[in-house]
Amino acid sequence: MAEPDPLATPRIQLAHGGGGTLMQQLIDGELRRLYADPHQVLHDAARLSLPHGRLAFTTDSYVVHPLEFEGGDIGSLAVTGTANDLAMAGARPLVLSLGLILEEGLEIALLRRIVSSLVEAARRCGVSIVTGDTKVVERGKGDGAFLNTSGIGLLQVDDPMDPLAIVPGDQLVVSGDLGRHGVAILAARHGLDLQPPLASDCMPLWPAVEALLAAGVRLHCLRDLTRGGLASALQELAAPNSLELQIEEACLPVAEPVRRTCELLGFDPLHLANEGRFLAVVPEADQERALAVLAPAGGTWIGRVAPGPPRGRVLLRTPFGSERVLIPLSGELLPRIC
Amino acid sequence: MAEPDPLATPRIQLAHGGGGTLMQQLIDGELRRLYADPHQVLHDAARLSLPHGRLAFTTDSYVVHPLEFEGGDIGSLAVTGTANDLAMAGARPLVLSLGLILEEGLEIALLRRIVSSLVEAARRCGVSIVTGDTKVVERGKGDGAFLNTSGIGLLQVDDPMDPLAIVPGDQLVVSGDLGRHGVAILAARHGLDLQPPLASDCMPLWPAVEALLAAGVRLHCLRDLTRGGLASALQELAAPNSLELQIEEACLPVAEPVRRTCELLGFDPLHLANEGRFLAVVPEADQERALAVLAPAGGTWIGRVAPGPPRGRVLLRTPFGSERVLIPLSGELLPRIC
Repeated sequence: MAEPDPLATPRIQLAHGGGGTLMQQLIDGELRRLYADPHQVLHDAARLSLPHGRLAFTTDSYVVHPLEFEGGDIGSLAVTGTANDLAMAGARPLVLSLGLILEEGLEIALLRRIVSSLVEAARRCGVSIVTGDTKVVERGKGDGAFLNTSGIGLLQVDDPMDPLAIVPGDQLVVSGDLGRHGVAILAARHGLDLQPPLASDCMPLWPAVEALLAAGVRLHCLRDLTRGGLASALQELAAPNSLELQIEEACLPVAEPVRRTCELLGFDPLHLANEGRFLAVVPEADQERALAVLAPAGGTWIGRVAPGPPRGRVLLRTPFGSERVLIPLSGELLPRIC
Repeated sequence: MAEPDPLATPRIQLAHGGGGTLMQQLIDGELRRLYADPHQVLHDAARLSLPHGRLAFTTDSYVVHPLEFEGGDIGSLAVTGTANDLAMAGARPLVLSLGLILEEGLEIALLRRIVSSLVEAARRCGVSIVTGDTKVVERGKGDGAFLNTSGIGLLQVDDPMDPLAIVPGDQLVVSGDLGRHGVAILAARHGLDLQPPLASDCMPLWPAVEALLAAGVRLHCLRDLTRGGLASALQELAAPNSLELQIEEACLPVAEPVRRTCELLGFDPLHLANEGRFLAVVPEADQERALAVLAPAGGTWIGRVAPGPPRGRVLLRTPFGSERVLIPLSGELLPRIC
């Protein structure tokens, strides 16, 4: 008695997650091409052959809604986002794991597009997907697909780059313009017909970090500007060392169509998520070198670090010379943007 | 204006996943105790200080329903299951990542119990949780909580232990009795009042593997008997080298209460999931040594390996001397058992 061919089955069934022949067919038909080494799928765990050195390890789950949007999908996000978290720790991304939680009824054609996107993003980020897992939940108990990627990278810096390394006098540089990813998700979610369409900024950040290190820039801290946008990142960096981050509002780079869409809808680009932008905190002496690396792709100086009150604060200086303290949001303006 | 205290808020809100102050309070109040190094939560990635050696890397998402059951919960499962996957590759489990996907409305008291269980399971497995991520999805788009853990372990064997290393003449040993986890989930899901209650077999497997290695047992392959149970594991191991796995049905260890419940409900213990049992494939010369290690905890010889047809097969020998070929299931009798 022949099993039904999953390629002829347009939708994911519960049995695709059951460890039986249907799951094997899903792996063979759709998922095996994720792996550089197809032998890998025989194992529960990958045996790694990594270059010698100290490692960084990170994880992120992806629940973006909708699954596809202008300039990317949950697949490109899942690879790029986790690779970028490694880059933010000063580590060259090497290998990723991939956990899929699929909802019964997911179109297999959509899964196939996500897998293609995962493969392509891994190529762009220079990482290999080496181990994975697939689960299926009943219709109505998930939302199409949730992904988790965990990543291992090779540390290229000796000093920890984290908020505790930031000191008064440091300068703040962002790697490009703000808010494109958030607007792309907003447009996809609400069927906004932006002309021309605004694509997510989703892109690998390691090349820019590597260029900064090669230029001898001392990186006190890097932070990607994802959930909560630049505003959340600044709040998080200000708190641990009780710093005041002084931002020049006029210097914040926001593309005209993003600004226009934000005005229309009442969003602030400062709070919108990005998936291919980061904030670099560098000593004043290294600011010019950092900008020499980042400016060609839109990198801009946006402010400086000063001593602040306990738990820190973020100060916005308007073009008119007035100042306002940025109030931390309790949540996110747009849930599920990554 | 004071933020609401999440400890006074009985349920997860969307904003708990938004990267703002409410998320920070969730991390500080509930999640920080997961980490051996509380400083860790400042980073997007953990910097690892691992012993020198070759590494194994694995990932699993956990979607078990219900979240709590006799003998465990999704937290103990998520730590133990991933640590066990490393053990099955011959690797001592070292560090884990933890990705949480929470559904809006999840009781925070339940989350707190899961976190306690994660902490306790990590202690039992000898692993540290070093990096994590939390997402929240809208009510009706998840099912309470989905977890992902990815793990890194230190390989303690030189040869790959996988199905391709299995050869005719090898012997099959299971580490303990079968089906307890499946029955525990079944009971929790359907409100069966088993007397006495049957607890999941969820337990760390590395100590048994380490003891086998210390006893000089050559391990051709190890496989934990989770999704699909012993039956699926045998099918998977038979296929790659076209082997026939000959199982003596009378030797399969099944506790009386598990057998009774299975008969009552029409389940076969061979297909029920276990979370603390594995199959060891060893050369005939090492069988006695393997049993000397495993028998005290219920380990039993169950069969042998012979040459088989293309894609392999599993043969069951009944106590009456007849034989039947085990037909692979297309899915799983009990979805979402892990």
